[in-house]
Amino acid sequence: MEKVIYLDHAATTPTRKEVADAMYPYFTDKFGNPSSIYGIAAQNKNIINQVRETIAKTLNAKSEEIYFTAGGTESDNWAIKATAEAYKQKGNHIITTKIEHHAVLHTCQYLEKNGFEITYLDVDESGKIKLEQLQKAIRPTTILISIMFANNEIGTIEPIKEIGKIAKTHGILFHTDAVQAYGQVPIDVEEYQIDMLSASGHKLNGPKGIGFLYIRRGLKLSSFIHGGAQERRRRAGTENVPGIVGLGKAVEMAFADMKERAERETQLRDYLMNRIMAEVPYVRVNGDRVNRLPNNVNMSFQFIEGESLLIMLDMKGICASSGSACTSGSLDPSHVLLAIGLPHEIAHGSLRITLGFENTKEEIDFTIDAIKEIVEKLRNMSPLYEDFIKEKKR
Amino acid sequence: MEKVIYLDHAATTPTRKEVADAMYPYFTDKFGNPSSIYGIAAQNKNIINQVRETIAKTLNAKSEEIYFTAGGTESDNWAIKATAEAYKQKGNHIITTKIEHHAVLHTCQYLEKNGFEITYLDVDESGKIKLEQLQKAIRPTTILISIMFANNEIGTIEPIKEIGKIAKTHGILFHTDAVQAYGQVPIDVEEYQIDMLSASGHKLNGPKGIGFLYIRRGLKLSSFIHGGAQERRRRAGTENVPGIVGLGKAVEMAFADMKERAERETQLRDYLMNRIMAEVPYVRVNGDRVNRLPNNVNMSFQFIEGESLLIMLDMKGICASSGSACTSGSLDPSHVLLAIGLPHEIAHGSLRITLGFENTKEEIDFTIDAIKEIVEKLRNMSPLYEDFIKEKKR
Repeated sequence: MEKVIYLDHAATTPTRKEVADAMYPYFTDKFGNPSSIYGIAAQNKNIINQVRETIAKTLNAKSEEIYFTAGGTESDNWAIKATAEAYKQKGNHIITTKIEHHAVLHTCQYLEKNGFEITYLDVDESGKIKLEQLQKAIRPTTILISIMFANNEIGTIEPIKEIGKIAKTHGILFHTDAVQAYGQVPIDVEEYQIDMLSASGHKLNGPKGIGFLYIRRGLKLSSFIHGGAQERRRRAGTENVPGIVGLGKAVEMAFADMKERAERETQLRDYLMNRIMAEVPYVRVNGDRVNRLPNNVNMSFQFIEGESLLIMLDMKGICASSGSACTSGSLDPSHVLLAIGLPHEIAHGSLRITLGFENTKEEIDFTIDAIKEIVEKLRNMSPLYEDFIKEKKR
Repeated sequence: MEKVIYLDHAATTPTRKEVADAMYPYFTDKFGNPSSIYGIAAQNKNIINQVRETIAKTLNAKSEEIYFTAGGTESDNWAIKATAEAYKQKGNHIITTKIEHHAVLHTCQYLEKNGFEITYLDVDESGKIKLEQLQKAIRPTTILISIMFANNEIGTIEPIKEIGKIAKTHGILFHTDAVQAYGQVPIDVEEYQIDMLSASGHKLNGPKGIGFLYIRRGLKLSSFIHGGAQERRRRAGTENVPGIVGLGKAVEMAFADMKERAERETQLRDYLMNRIMAEVPYVRVNGDRVNRLPNNVNMSFQFIEGESLLIMLDMKGICASSGSACTSGSLDPSHVLLAIGLPHEIAHGSLRITLGFENTKEEIDFTIDAIKEIVEKLRNMSPLYEDFIKEKKR
């Protein structure tokens, strides 16, 4: 493969070599079905529980509160749909935000068609929910608050601790989609009073097709996938042993150097944002400047199309995104950028760069130069920009 | 790992080395998110569609009728729950059998709690449904017939073509759980008039955590997992690219030598059954002798506990099963063995041996000797057997 500069870690990350190597023997040799009785199978039951323990420690949770799933999307579906089902006698109202990932939004829309009422909270111009609005949205029938830990497009970190407190005060369950945040910032389910938390392996240099849902002990939540007795009868299907082993290794590695990595990425992130802001005109940074994922840069370039920018970056071997990768194929501007108040034409000119541990300062310098060159070229081709400059010179 | 004789291929199979090797680069190098726009991601979209094509060909289906899932259990859940949801205006009745895998049975039981009516068909002593009973069970409100292609415990192959014809005649959708059959026996969704078919990677020497659902074109079936626009908006979640690549390689290899492998396994299977029947008294073969998966042996040994037999086989390095691995942890005898009419005490003394391509005649000879020795030892310890022999000698 030709050398690329990969700057789209919010879409997916390369699996670390150590992770892939840890998984390999669980495909070919240690392949037993953990539900079987004989030795090579029982060993796999142990390794699964070790990974459960590893993950639980990172969240200040208990091992039996971690349930493996096929990824963040399944975790979100499970948390929201099963809560709706288990608590429908209590009420039919769910509160979420306008900037959730589609795994949450489309699940909520599905429930709306089935008799549930959903409040989609607004966010401010930095992407944060307003706590007063959350308070006001609560009804006697509210059974769930589902608010993401950090946004996948603009990197804004929500006031999770305050949300947890409000949920707890009102006796409402609190689920957070932490797919982008887990492994990047510290999360303590006790301190933040989180009842359910979704995470995914492939966002933290682990494999695709594996994730987990944290479910607080004592919470009566039914199954989403029915069948065999796996995961203490709550999630059926033969355990994805290599996936679980890979997730465990990735989590270990992500948490071993989380603090240093976050510092390094924050520096690179701010360097990139500051240089672009200083050296390219008609640009804005999207998302909160402080409460922000260490690896996220999101900027809007006036007078250009984000897609053209991406294609020309790709020609230089730079992989980036114009929004959530999961929504590509759609020509609508990102729902997140619209929710923070960007006009359509500005939202269309947006670029998301998300860093990983392997990115270097040299790569960022190369990228800054590439962006400057491409933005200039695209603007020179743009009649809108031409008009704007003419107007300005008059 | 110590050398074992693995005879539990219905529980799971070792991933072929070629499969694991094919997957490896998709973890570390070719890791792009297929929904992204840049080159390394677009390549992954192509590879996914190639695998879709590979699988479609094996079933005489169209490429766009194959949807990747996290495995057989998710496929069964999707097919049954989404059909129930999509066709609930038409009716609330579903027909299945008493011997389905728990992924189907527990999903049906879940629907029963939600207003659906389920008919669980009986089977005859060989494990086959009775077509007249199926005919009689059909109501104006029947929306789905879900009958497994071949049983996971006793290997009996159901009269799928006849079932498909009955379903078609009555305008009822037909789903089959082909998790055990796919890759072992030829399946043609056109000839058999199958509308939905579930399959799993790890049952055919592919990886765990990946499977697919075939959905006939034109069938209006909603999503089960909501979120991003993957799988033509029908199954959300970042595609498990390495898993899909591994599944594709495993399918290719399984179908390349299916006929020869089936012949070889059938020979070994019959050799094992015939020798045990000839050399061990008070034994019966469970399941159909002819319409049977090539790799399945299921026998009941009177006067012994299947679990003790398994443990002692394990001590000799032989991995087998007493029923479905997915139900272990339960002390109830297998629902399948009860459905074919075995009394509890006979069902308890059952052993399932399921062969794979790597098993040799030497392994089978060693296993036969081990079974003979262990059965004799266990019977000599059994007061029931002692009484029986005394009674006989009188």
